[in-house]
Amino acid sequence: MKFCSHCGNPVSLRTPQGDHLPRFICEGCGAVHYQNPKLIVGCVPEHEGRILLCRRAIEPRLGFWTIPAGFMENGETTQDGARRESLEEAHAQVEIGSLLAVVHVLHADQVHVMFRASLPQASFGPSVESLEVQLYDEAEIPWQDIAFRSVDFALRRYFEDRRLGVEQHHFAALDLRKGEPA
Amino acid sequence: MKFCSHCGNPVSLRTPQGDHLPRFICEGCGAVHYQNPKLIVGCVPEHEGRILLCRRAIEPRLGFWTIPAGFMENGETTQDGARRESLEEAHAQVEIGSLLAVVHVLHADQVHVMFRASLPQASFGPSVESLEVQLYDEAEIPWQDIAFRSVDFALRRYFEDRRLGVEQHHFAALDLRKGEPA
Repeated sequence: MKFCSHCGNPVSLRTPQGDHLPRFICEGCGAVHYQNPKLIVGCVPEHEGRILLCRRAIEPRLGFWTIPAGFMENGETTQDGARRESLEEAHAQVEIGSLLAVVHVLHADQVHVMFRASLPQASFGPSVESLEVQLYDEAEIPWQDIAFRSVDFALRRYFEDRRLGVEQHHFAALDLRKGEPA
Repeated sequence: MKFCSHCGNPVSLRTPQGDHLPRFICEGCGAVHYQNPKLIVGCVPEHEGRILLCRRAIEPRLGFWTIPAGFMENGETTQDGARRESLEEAHAQVEIGSLLAVVHVLHADQVHVMFRASLPQASFGPSVESLEVQLYDEAEIPWQDIAFRSVDFALRRYFEDRRLGVEQHHFAALDLRKGEPA
């Protein structure tokens, strides 16, 4: 951020009185511009025991596999967003189920919220965002080619819970700034 | 948003090619500025069966009671944020527990994430943000003076679950744009 989105004057990074963190503050109108984490919402759609994955047609991680997921929009719930992303990325009409995972991706200032979902009809296909869309048995999941660590985490918890016959939710925090392997 | 935060030129609201919603787009550098929901994180701290509430010293809802909660910051988890807010607003050192509620506040483009928490020491006090901080028995909760509907929702689920001896999580959506009573 270099300029104020309210008045167009330059901003500087300093800590407002009474605050504890530096913020972008407008030199013109004095507006304080806070930066907050963004929500990514997605789901693990299951059809007759198999899981729907999408191969990414866009960066980052073009060519790698992921679940339907994307930035949450204003005016929708997390479940709405996960349903919308399934439709947009995979032309799949899913029914959102229980909360599966909340992954704090600290190096990207993102919170990934992922649900279980059912896919009643085996109807889906590629899109502008997905090169291909495919149902996978657990044994066939391309673990080496999963696009994101948060998705890897969610999928592993999904299958573990399914084996146990439970539907728990799982928290995790990832921080590549701390030198963890990508 | 009126000006581009990257280059300072005016923005206009239109739908980018391949997108499905209008976005703020810079007339100068072409940057697309997405607007996404913000996360509010908080907790219900319990000490020997009683609940910690704060009376708000700031708008909105100055003078009304709430749980420690506030905007999530970059670089922290939702649990970190709830812990930090308890310290800032109530000088209370809490231990964050299980997920209690996720409330989509659609008219404010916010997602409120609230946890159970324990307050091991009965040590707390007012702050710049809280006129007073007090422990309440369930029977004494000032229900008529609770600041926000999301907090009312979380507190009611908290006590219901406690009575049942369970720790479930609860989703809700509030939308004052639909003419629901405030």
